[in-house]
Amino acid sequence: MRAFQLTGDDLASLQPVELAMPEPGPGQVLVHLGASSLNYRDLAIARRQYLPQLPRPLVPLSDAAGEVVALGAGVDQWRVGDRVTSHYTPAWQSGRFLAHYVDSRPGGPRDGLLREYAVFDQHAVVATPAHLTDAEAATLPIAALTAWNVLETFAPRPGEIVLLQGSGGVALFALQFARLRGAEVWMTTGSPEKTDRLRELGASRVFDGRADWGAQVFQASGGGVDMVLELGGSSSLLQSLQAIRPQGGVAVIGFLGGFGASTELVLPMLAKHARVQALSVGHRESFLAMNRAIVQHHLKPLIDSRHAFDQAPAAYERMATGRPFGKLVIEHA
Amino acid sequence: MRAFQLTGDDLASLQPVELAMPEPGPGQVLVHLGASSLNYRDLAIARRQYLPQLPRPLVPLSDAAGEVVALGAGVDQWRVGDRVTSHYTPAWQSGRFLAHYVDSRPGGPRDGLLREYAVFDQHAVVATPAHLTDAEAATLPIAALTAWNVLETFAPRPGEIVLLQGSGGVALFALQFARLRGAEVWMTTGSPEKTDRLRELGASRVFDGRADWGAQVFQASGGGVDMVLELGGSSSLLQSLQAIRPQGGVAVIGFLGGFGASTELVLPMLAKHARVQALSVGHRESFLAMNRAIVQHHLKPLIDSRHAFDQAPAAYERMATGRPFGKLVIEHA
Amino acid sequence: MRAFQLTGDDLASLQPVELAMPEPGPGQVLVHLGASSLNYRDLAIARRQYLPQLPRPLVPLSDAAGEVVALGAGVDQWRVGDRVTSHYTPAWQSGRFLAHYVDSRPGGPRDGLLREYAVFDQHAVVATPAHLTDAEAATLPIAALTAWNVLETFAPRPGEIVLLQGSGGVALFALQFARLRGAEVWMTTGSPEKTDRLRELGASRVFDGRADWGAQVFQASGGGVDMVLELGGSSSLLQSLQAIRPQGGVAVIGFLGGFGASTELVLPMLAKHARVQALSVGHRESFLAMNRAIVQHHLKPLIDSRHAFDQAPAAYERMATGRPFGKLVIEHA
Amino acid sequence: MRAFQLTGDDLASLQPVELAMPEPGPGQVLVHLGASSLNYRDLAIARRQYLPQLPRPLVPLSDAAGEVVALGAGVDQWRVGDRVTSHYTPAWQSGRFLAHYVDSRPGGPRDGLLREYAVFDQHAVVATPAHLTDAEAATLPIAALTAWNVLETFAPRPGEIVLLQGSGGVALFALQFARLRGAEVWMTTGSPEKTDRLRELGASRVFDGRADWGAQVFQASGGGVDMVLELGGSSSLLQSLQAIRPQGGVAVIGFLGGFGASTELVLPMLAKHARVQALSVGHRESFLAMNRAIVQHHLKPLIDSRHAFDQAPAAYERMATGRPFGKLVIEHA
Repeated sequence: MRAFQLTGDDLASLQPVELAMPEPGPGQVLVHLGASSLNYRDLAIARRQYLPQLPRPLVPLSDAAGEVVALGAGVDQWRVGDRVTSHYTPAWQSGRFLAHYVDSRPGGPRDGLLREYAVFDQHAVVATPAHLTDAEAATLPIAALTAWNVLETFAPRPGEIVLLQGSGGVALFALQFARLRGAEVWMTTGSPEKTDRLRELGASRVFDGRADWGAQVFQASGGGVDMVLELGGSSSLLQSLQAIRPQGGVAVIGFLGGFGASTELVLPMLAKHARVQALSVGHRESFLAMNRAIVQHHLKPLIDSRHAFDQAPAAYERMATGRPFGKLVIEHA
Repeated sequence: MRAFQLTGDDLASLQPVELAMPEPGPGQVLVHLGASSLNYRDLAIARRQYLPQLPRPLVPLSDAAGEVVALGAGVDQWRVGDRVTSHYTPAWQSGRFLAHYVDSRPGGPRDGLLREYAVFDQHAVVATPAHLTDAEAATLPIAALTAWNVLETFAPRPGEIVLLQGSGGVALFALQFARLRGAEVWMTTGSPEKTDRLRELGASRVFDGRADWGAQVFQASGGGVDMVLELGGSSSLLQSLQAIRPQGGVAVIGFLGGFGASTELVLPMLAKHARVQALSVGHRESFLAMNRAIVQHHLKPLIDSRHAFDQAPAAYERMATGRPFGKLVIEHA
Repeated sequence: MRAFQLTGDDLASLQPVELAMPEPGPGQVLVHLGASSLNYRDLAIARRQYLPQLPRPLVPLSDAAGEVVALGAGVDQWRVGDRVTSHYTPAWQSGRFLAHYVDSRPGGPRDGLLREYAVFDQHAVVATPAHLTDAEAATLPIAALTAWNVLETFAPRPGEIVLLQGSGGVALFALQFARLRGAEVWMTTGSPEKTDRLRELGASRVFDGRADWGAQVFQASGGGVDMVLELGGSSSLLQSLQAIRPQGGVAVIGFLGGFGASTELVLPMLAKHARVQALSVGHRESFLAMNRAIVQHHLKPLIDSRHAFDQAPAAYERMATGRPFGKLVIEHA
Repeated sequence: MRAFQLTGDDLASLQPVELAMPEPGPGQVLVHLGASSLNYRDLAIARRQYLPQLPRPLVPLSDAAGEVVALGAGVDQWRVGDRVTSHYTPAWQSGRFLAHYVDSRPGGPRDGLLREYAVFDQHAVVATPAHLTDAEAATLPIAALTAWNVLETFAPRPGEIVLLQGSGGVALFALQFARLRGAEVWMTTGSPEKTDRLRELGASRVFDGRADWGAQVFQASGGGVDMVLELGGSSSLLQSLQAIRPQGGVAVIGFLGGFGASTELVLPMLAKHARVQALSVGHRESFLAMNRAIVQHHLKPLIDSRHAFDQAPAAYERMATGRPFGKLVIEHA
């Protein structure tokens, strides 16, 4: 069975390898993976910027979709031929997050899904929406569920305005989910040439993310937007706080802007009575709820580019340097 | 100034009358009313079926829209020429409902708005959405705000299914608001000839409301819908309880089906762990939030028929006998 | 191993029996049960009034506590010697309730815990609070968790008033939990001789539950209490609706008053904008949260009476006829 | 009528002055103030550190209590002799906070309550709990309502742990309110000699606030406390983030620690999925709810020291240098 492994501290160490075919144990399914997708997490792990303690060699990637090809003993949720998508944190089925759940994640600390076949506990996957290909479904586990979780938590309503940053995977899912909820979406982008595409996708207004957009958004909205999805980390959080209305919210999910010396944030927070909440993906029950919405609305993920399995390093390269518009997919079959 | 007054116990007692022109006191505005709309409440009041203690003569109707034509001393929220819509419970600005707020309602106990001019406290009206005519805006105060309040309270999400009963004013607003929130809408109707119109408006499925639809809906939804908007009162509440999923909700807002001997409801509620909540309109803060959504989405009310001011009794007749599809409007000017 | 089985349609059919010693399978623990407790459900099952389709013979009872004496393969949550309490709906670990979870319940449809030893999946039990005996812990799974779930759902706050009915197991747990939350507790009782005991336990006011208490409570509270825990079913629900404030809540958890022809309830609900919600026990995550509160506050269950294992039928008799004050416990060892 | 005015940029500019007796206009009441209390805000305003644009002369202080001695026309909420307490943000009666509400605040921008008599709009005061003196009631408007608002927003439950910082007015009210809700309270203090007093008041554990307490709290709680009330601003926020459990909360209400260069906070927030929310006082509806709780539980504020009216500057001095334990009160009569 073909796979890739990280063996060192950089992208160059991502190498193809031949692994033994896995077999499903009790309660497990064997899945022939049709596609996987990349998240920023994967790039940071490959560079040992994130979770540097992870062992090598490590099969990377946490998000994939495929078809069940064999069942372990006692499997009662799936049949051979079922199409399934991986759940990022298998131990988190529902309820409150517990710290030890992170141990169950593929792509680190567990070996990941950049491989032809993988075994999963039967509750570690969800049914793939019928209208999605494996390539499309592989984009869901982290990026879509993070966006869904943000919108579940802040629950913007019709009549409200949600400001989204950038045009990566999470932002474009959030664009779709926020519009499903009847909220108006405004966006920032550091690449003004993307403005038209963002407007075509439903963004009502697009601001230049390189400028001092916080005050502009506050002004244009007549007193602040209801929430901001913050991806930049410390470098843009102050702008987000300027952009919101009194008692507005900022969902913090990323740190693309880096972690240099931080601006003073407490006073701006107090001035707005702001709620700043860090979030990431949700539990499996939430994944199932999201998929009901995806099916109901025939929603399609936005894919930046597709890469052949043996060209997987190229997908990493595009994430590192290419300012992708949407998700990066690796097609296994 | 022309007006109508109820003088007796039935529709026949609704008579035109000439009243003195009102003048705005401190903090009040004088509004030239362009249109009013009818609610089931108004019919039940005219027949002394509801609030029989109300005095006569009584100017009926609580919902209207028009233009500010004069300002009392100290008015700082409005200018002459502003277009405004009445708020049903002026004393309820926000927060928890208090019992005595009902005393502030026009159309009973206070004289109502079936008249050419009316004075309002400046906080008893809201700005009319610019894309709506007075006839359209006059439909909002009770019917739209009740539907909005139900959906705010139960907060259905994308992926969920909301079942609505009938095709009156509240149900058709709820249809629009539920779809704004990304929920799928199913409906029941006692007039199958309306099925096509309901589907055109966005209902995914329409059931025959004269049949045993509760079990059908449960079956068709694969285990129950997420919530039901119940308008029939005791006679259909059991069906609603059959239709929902475990832990589903039933919003009770009306009693069109009458109040005969009730079916036992506690056991079906326990079997589903159901939430049954009676609701009506919301506060003024909620009206403002609703109008933001109406403006944002250019939403238009559904009007069954328009009646000239001197033909106001005909509007009552249509409500009493005509199975209207949407709201009944009286045009004052 | 000694046990009891129901073999017919009444209490007389509850007979001692000798069963084979069970053995823990993979992921299971063997528990030596120190005590069990009775719920109204158990009496109704014994009389075939509730779940009449359950097979016979059936080992009854769902609530018990004891000590782990053996571990199956792969058990990583418990060690021999750990003290554990059963969870009523083992399949419901957290999140939304699904209909099929009821299949996992001991005491029906699964064989129950009126026996010396039982095997449990390792996630079907929780740690017993150290300050509780097995007899005390055995009272928790249904009665305490139902009361906890009601208070979690309605979330009364300091300054609010909660009205509780009766002095059975759930009501007395609700009394303790509501007071922990800082709410004032009022109670009704059909046995005025219990008034002093209820006041000693912290009830601020006690009303005669045989009288027309709804109006009295409304009057005494100056406009209605914030919520009522309704145990009587249809026969007292109207009283509860009279007792609450506008937008108040009624938690419906039982049906001790029977199911005769119901009073019309929709109009009183509409008049109060009432929330009536049927509830029962919660999930295992909620059980763990409840136990943290029980440990933190050294809370002790109220036990009406303790019965020796071979006198188990006497416990049923007391439930059937004795108007118990608190929980009925059977001591196995 | 005696009063004090700020005339410059420091405490020395706080001078006694004789003002004309105010008269109540329509809808207003004249109140003979029995006591006022100091907040950190007042000190910062006196020093022009906070709201430096406020005009001079300015009568300072926002929190006071007294007795109604005269009524303006149309007052229907109060009678002469009623005891009332000021509400900090009169324009905020309930619902969402709007930016312009701050304009209604006494003590800046409006003239404040360090005076013998004051007029209030009738909805700008609340009834004083009968068991409280004016000195006690004067402590409520900012400090108690801020603490109440924090606990309403984060809603800790029995079984949870709340960590509070310091022993100022807000922290000591939060201690009482958190315990009313059944939560366990842990505290930090920079004055270890206060430890015994804090434990007597109900703190289960007290940590040295000058040390690296975040990690200690995390360790002692077996994985993090449920929420922290953060008063120190940027300087201690990182400690608070270390102290909480995954998905825990930090309420940010103050900035006593100053605003120097901030530590990077985004990564620690992401690691915990933390909710950091800035809050201050609540609306008048919330004040009424708080007072119901205060009355129900006969709760008494903790007063550090009482100062005679003509010694008002001494109260400021104590706030500036004295590390008060509880509230500083000025007795007017």
